[in-house]
Amino acid sequence: MDSQKTDRREFLKRSAAVAGGLTLGAAEPALGQAVAPVPANILGTDELVGYGDRSRFVTSERIPHGGRASPDTFGLDFHIATPLQDSVGVVTPSSLHYMGTTRGSYVPDINPAEHRLMIHGMVERPLVFTMEEIKRLPSVTRMHFIECAGNRSNRRHTTVQETHGMTSNAEWTGVLLSTLLEEAGVQDDADWIVAEGVEEVKGASSIPMTKAMDDVLICYGMNGEDVRPQQGFPLRMLAPGFEGIFNVKWLRRIKVVDRYYMTYNDYGHLTQDPVNAALGYQIGPKSVITHPSGGQQLPGKGFYEVSGLAWSGGGRVDRVEVTTDGGLTWTDAKLRGTAQPMAHTRFTFEWDWDGSACELQSRCIDEIGQVQPSRAQVAEFWNQPPDQPPRVRGQDNSIQPWRVDSDGSIHNAIA
Amino acid sequence: MDSQKTDRREFLKRSAAVAGGLTLGAAEPALGQAVAPVPANILGTDELVGYGDRSRFVTSERIPHGGRASPDTFGLDFHIATPLQDSVGVVTPSSLHYMGTTRGSYVPDINPAEHRLMIHGMVERPLVFTMEEIKRLPSVTRMHFIECAGNRSNRRHTTVQETHGMTSNAEWTGVLLSTLLEEAGVQDDADWIVAEGVEEVKGASSIPMTKAMDDVLICYGMNGEDVRPQQGFPLRMLAPGFEGIFNVKWLRRIKVVDRYYMTYNDYGHLTQDPVNAALGYQIGPKSVITHPSGGQQLPGKGFYEVSGLAWSGGGRVDRVEVTTDGGLTWTDAKLRGTAQPMAHTRFTFEWDWDGSACELQSRCIDEIGQVQPSRAQVAEFWNQPPDQPPRVRGQDNSIQPWRVDSDGSIHNAIA
Repeated sequence: MDSQKTDRREFLKRSAAVAGGLTLGAAEPALGQAVAPVPANILGTDELVGYGDRSRFVTSERIPHGGRASPDTFGLDFHIATPLQDSVGVVTPSSLHYMGTTRGSYVPDINPAEHRLMIHGMVERPLVFTMEEIKRLPSVTRMHFIECAGNRSNRRHTTVQETHGMTSNAEWTGVLLSTLLEEAGVQDDADWIVAEGVEEVKGASSIPMTKAMDDVLICYGMNGEDVRPQQGFPLRMLAPGFEGIFNVKWLRRIKVVDRYYMTYNDYGHLTQDPVNAALGYQIGPKSVITHPSGGQQLPGKGFYEVSGLAWSGGGRVDRVEVTTDGGLTWTDAKLRGTAQPMAHTRFTFEWDWDGSACELQSRCIDEIGQVQPSRAQVAEFWNQPPDQPPRVRGQDNSIQPWRVDSDGSIHNAIA
Repeated sequence: MDSQKTDRREFLKRSAAVAGGLTLGAAEPALGQAVAPVPANILGTDELVGYGDRSRFVTSERIPHGGRASPDTFGLDFHIATPLQDSVGVVTPSSLHYMGTTRGSYVPDINPAEHRLMIHGMVERPLVFTMEEIKRLPSVTRMHFIECAGNRSNRRHTTVQETHGMTSNAEWTGVLLSTLLEEAGVQDDADWIVAEGVEEVKGASSIPMTKAMDDVLICYGMNGEDVRPQQGFPLRMLAPGFEGIFNVKWLRRIKVVDRYYMTYNDYGHLTQDPVNAALGYQIGPKSVITHPSGGQQLPGKGFYEVSGLAWSGGGRVDRVEVTTDGGLTWTDAKLRGTAQPMAHTRFTFEWDWDGSACELQSRCIDEIGQVQPSRAQVAEFWNQPPDQPPRVRGQDNSIQPWRVDSDGSIHNAIA
């Protein structure tokens, strides 16, 4: 609270120096004219009870990823991206949570009364659970992000929804997988699990036992209600901090095995070496400024709150730095709320824009000391020329630069 | 994490002693038959993009409060209650957030481009803000509950939705009111504010300046998107921990004044003494078990996770105790996640039900040491006979007892 008071004073001092925009120093009668009108329309009682809707004036929507116009053209690679440019706080509304799948534009319509979860393979006691039985077990509730490995910008991308919209964050509720595995009794040589969803193609992911016994969740709840169909209703596996593909939707079977299993989900970018698997799967520290961001327009010079999201598969976000001069100088942003492990964290930065062209960037430092790299560093790592657009393999967590033109328009600064 | 591991071991030990229900020790071929079927139905692409829906199998809904069948019969006292019996975690989905108003079954349909917030009265610089201007200011994001003063059980109530459904919890994003007031410059003798919404009746609430300058929020965001119309779109005032009526919806005007103003919202239960006002308005420590709760049915004896919500206007929830023998012995429940000030906090309690009739209760202790009282204590405070149903004036934060009959049915134990 004390630091907040200091912030405000600093804001006010600066704000007094910034002419116009925020305050109208009009006299009382003029203010009387300016008060908000009582709207003529009221909403009918149908909208009032049951399950409420958002305002008809709020039209923020998900979009197909990769510039494809229609879901009919997706084929197997079906992805829809969250409108991060409109985000506030850290919760992604369930209706706007991103979805990614390489198994067809396919959302099964599951009756939870008929759904089962089987734990089998190298266990002492194979088990089958109904949804009711799972809900009787000790639960946990945790904020976690999910992110698609393909969540990275390229030269086609204009907005933050296009560059970074394949990550979202929700309050997940469920049972620790370790609770189920301990109940089943894992055999000594069992080093992996294979998690399988309810799809005709039997999409499945191999996960190391160390991760499975650590913090993997079997979730039935999301943002205070049942998991949404697009997120795996009635049951989704959460592998916090791992690439999106490990967070198996419509989970129906977990097989305990002694080795990495190749599955439909393996299409070249996953490491099959069990020794390196856990680290290879861990999403690096990442951040992006969501406002102002590509495609947005500043109405003029003056005070703005720069706002964005940071996250890391390595744990809590420890710090976020912001630059307004393209990386010459960096200043600590403020973290809003309590940073949670493997969860989106909101950062804000108070900025007086002088009206000249500049470049905004953010970088994330996580609790284990990892620093989000620049585009040049990522290009060097993959042995690519730094003066060309990087063609990044796998997860790209490099810094996103936004160029601010003197007319207030915001652009993706990646060539 | 360590304590979680201990928990699991204890659960497994007990679980092994509890026969049946959770585990099916069948052989592999039988398990093969038990695996979840691939559903025949898939959802169409219309549901896939844009703004997603919940499963058609999830039908949890709000209900009119007080047993009234239709919103048409509400008149001025319009209240709809959250289905707490289905809640998980601490976020209330915006579509299920409770709504209460004494100003008619009225939800204004506001165009945010036309909406204004005026700060006037005893200030140096009267101000008018557009929504765009408010969103440029330094923001905060905080979890907070809202609760109607009338959120209490009586003899008509069967379910937890009826007894306690007029409280909900959300992630709110907005500007601290103190930021706006400091910008306007509050005059020395100004001890109160009057906050007014966009209603024909000019519903308004008087709030002490000490509270206004402390933690009151002017919110445009709720659970990661715009505030919903029923919650005050495009702008709601949050007075954390104060009774629901202070959290003015469709906020359009804040007048800084030198005394308590009587308004349409004053209907007898609010304290007008400015010295005692802040404490009188503060909601006491409260909790309720949401599962199992009235109207629910346990399938048989065995292990259950008892789960509920606790909150207090006095700050963070420090501790929750649970009794399964009607108050003879109390045991600490576990708090899930990071308890936030003036926010719902999820508690859980691991319970082996032996199949005999019993009574479940929970009680909340907050960070300033306040303890949730029993019904008898509340009756004594109001000088009512303890053996009769209490007729409580104003806010009732007494303990909610649920009776478990030997057939597994759950009932409100209040006579």
